[in-house]
Amino acid sequence: MSILIKNVLHNNQTTDVFIEDNKFSRIAPNMKVEADKIVDGSNKAILPAFYNTHNHAAMSILRGFGDDKPLFEWLNEDIWPIEDQLTEEDIAIASRLAILEMIKSGTVFFADMYFFGEQTIQAVADMGIRAAISRVEMDLFDEQKFEQKKIDTANFIEFSNPCPQRIRKCLSCHAVYTVSDELFKFAKETAEKQGWFMQIHVSETKQEVDDCFAKWGMSPVAKLDSLGLLTPKTILAHAVHLSDEDIEIIKKRGCYISTNPISNLKLNSGMFMFEKMYKIMPENITLGTDGASSNNNLNMLDSIKFCSLAAKAESNSALGGKADDIYKVATINGAKAFGLNAGEIKEGCLADCLLVDLDNVFLTPNYNIISNMVYSADSSCICDVICDGRLIMENGKVAGEKEIINNAKKLAEKIKNMKK
Amino acid sequence: MSILIKNVLHNNQTTDVFIEDNKFSRIAPNMKVEADKIVDGSNKAILPAFYNTHNHAAMSILRGFGDDKPLFEWLNEDIWPIEDQLTEEDIAIASRLAILEMIKSGTVFFADMYFFGEQTIQAVADMGIRAAISRVEMDLFDEQKFEQKKIDTANFIEFSNPCPQRIRKCLSCHAVYTVSDELFKFAKETAEKQGWFMQIHVSETKQEVDDCFAKWGMSPVAKLDSLGLLTPKTILAHAVHLSDEDIEIIKKRGCYISTNPISNLKLNSGMFMFEKMYKIMPENITLGTDGASSNNNLNMLDSIKFCSLAAKAESNSALGGKADDIYKVATINGAKAFGLNAGEIKEGCLADCLLVDLDNVFLTPNYNIISNMVYSADSSCICDVICDGRLIMENGKVAGEKEIINNAKKLAEKIKNMKK
Repeated sequence: MSILIKNVLHNNQTTDVFIEDNKFSRIAPNMKVEADKIVDGSNKAILPAFYNTHNHAAMSILRGFGDDKPLFEWLNEDIWPIEDQLTEEDIAIASRLAILEMIKSGTVFFADMYFFGEQTIQAVADMGIRAAISRVEMDLFDEQKFEQKKIDTANFIEFSNPCPQRIRKCLSCHAVYTVSDELFKFAKETAEKQGWFMQIHVSETKQEVDDCFAKWGMSPVAKLDSLGLLTPKTILAHAVHLSDEDIEIIKKRGCYISTNPISNLKLNSGMFMFEKMYKIMPENITLGTDGASSNNNLNMLDSIKFCSLAAKAESNSALGGKADDIYKVATINGAKAFGLNAGEIKEGCLADCLLVDLDNVFLTPNYNIISNMVYSADSSCICDVICDGRLIMENGKVAGEKEIINNAKKLAEKIKNMKK
Repeated sequence: MSILIKNVLHNNQTTDVFIEDNKFSRIAPNMKVEADKIVDGSNKAILPAFYNTHNHAAMSILRGFGDDKPLFEWLNEDIWPIEDQLTEEDIAIASRLAILEMIKSGTVFFADMYFFGEQTIQAVADMGIRAAISRVEMDLFDEQKFEQKKIDTANFIEFSNPCPQRIRKCLSCHAVYTVSDELFKFAKETAEKQGWFMQIHVSETKQEVDDCFAKWGMSPVAKLDSLGLLTPKTILAHAVHLSDEDIEIIKKRGCYISTNPISNLKLNSGMFMFEKMYKIMPENITLGTDGASSNNNLNMLDSIKFCSLAAKAESNSALGGKADDIYKVATINGAKAFGLNAGEIKEGCLADCLLVDLDNVFLTPNYNIISNMVYSADSSCICDVICDGRLIMENGKVAGEKEIINNAKKLAEKIKNMKK
């Protein structure tokens, strides 16, 4: 399969972009090559697509389900009673809804932390996006749950991956307040043995940090480090409340951070120290949406704008969270965190990209396309999404979207009637 | 002219909505009436449209023109040298670009503070939106400029309004640090004589408040009050840095506030005390985008999400900035601030509304349409916009949009070549 994109704006120059198999093979003007598919790029710009490094994708089916409540009331009364009743089939439907939303808003990869990961993997396989999928490890310090998690994880390892190139299985541990030392150790050994990436929620709230000190006499970051969980293949989600010692550890271990600015604001968890951390580890800061029930969308365009504005507020400077830095964080950094040679429009890189409409009002005028994408664009600007060398959205349309929406609506009706 | 919207979701019920002339005349299911135009509302919801109470619309042509710089460097080096060279014809083109963007994102009214207001009025007249348009009063304490402002204002009064119902001329004073007492007094007398609304930037930055105390021994709010400028027809933009005494004055005078959360974050001006102020004066808090060069769009959907999230951060509570409150602020409150019987889908009210697509992924599932609009929606959700009883966007299309974009692109090329 090959795609030739003709006359598209790339770094302020009009050029052609040739994609062979799943890579950008050549970028040059007026190319004369045979291609299976020709895309007219005139009045469009080609840009890196988004890599969403923290998500609970299937929670999209709970979008707007009882929000604006205190966190634990909301979890106890609304979210957890429903999640307990969701079936594998429900997760299959909900994952497709989430992936549709991500594609529509320019995302080509997501790191997922939820349950029934096999269903999410199948949805990813069918819809052409990339992902790193985990089944979350969480035992609430209960030995029976720990044993069950070992069985679930063994099954997940055995589950045959329908498209190994695009999908990586990975491991995720929920957090220091929900995972026993034994489960952490089991997860670490499994991740090492399988060569998997690891995702962990860390220092999301001040409460989490205070409780960890009270229980273990150290911060969540130090606790994870004491268990050997921090490596260059570890992605730490949130990381809002970090001490200088924590930052030293994270830097030394070469971990990646996934900041989730909207979720952190919506749940009033605090603001990530973007400017400080970006100066210390400019390649290792990445961006996530978190699940739709604490955002309430998976739209990385919302998240890049909020990431910039929160960075300005947190650093008390209008110069914080510069558009160019944020766009890098949302694209190439996220790709690199999961070992992908992607996130750039460059010969040899994986062919993931967006084509955006330069006639769209939010991108007009176009003095600076990155500034426009960060501060002005919304999903209406995105015409086409290419992932792994295949058009997964063309002229705003994603294959099967009508059916995905209808199935999600039916599932939502079922959820409305569930006991809480 | 009459419009019948069939089978549309309104307050969780499917109904018909009949619009005669510029008002909602009847809301009831299965209506049998003759209408000039029938709109199929199935799979759509009808919602109040947005009233943007603070804007510098024509600045859209400077979107992304040298941002991420310190405020005064940006103004001095980028914005002001260009603004000085803009002609009336340029403002006509730029105003149309801004109005197109507003309609596309569901706005039916904007309060404007810029120059060459006559051109903006003509653009509003042509494009079917509502507005309160002013030519900004600002003399920088220079007597010659003051005299010129008097002439400009007299001309603006004389300028014949091409559609009096939808457009209100109004007066705006820039701020206490740019307007002399004489000009303030002239503005007050003019506004009183003409029966016009008044817009003033107030207490946007801490610096403004400190400087005002140093110069006048009182806060900007107290200063404006001492000049008699605070009335129920005064809309105070920003109002970020208010003392308890300021709040007392504003409440006593019955002023409206236009909060501009994105601009305040982008320029690092601070965060409006939304929760506190909304409790004190729940009818008088309204929402604005500010100009596109400090946002960088005029999309009220971005602003409602940021308004809520900033309210949560500022009040240190996940319960701050509730979706229902924010939607009210962005709709009915904005309409009332400018004396419009609008902002609700209600018989007898002005027929302004949105039809949103319930098959759009960002609105799926639909447990709570207002939560979805505030936290999840983007402009791709909006199918149709009705203002003053006329369809100004139908199936996502606005009349003349191609020409507006092309003219804006040409003007942007001219601006790129202007001397700075």
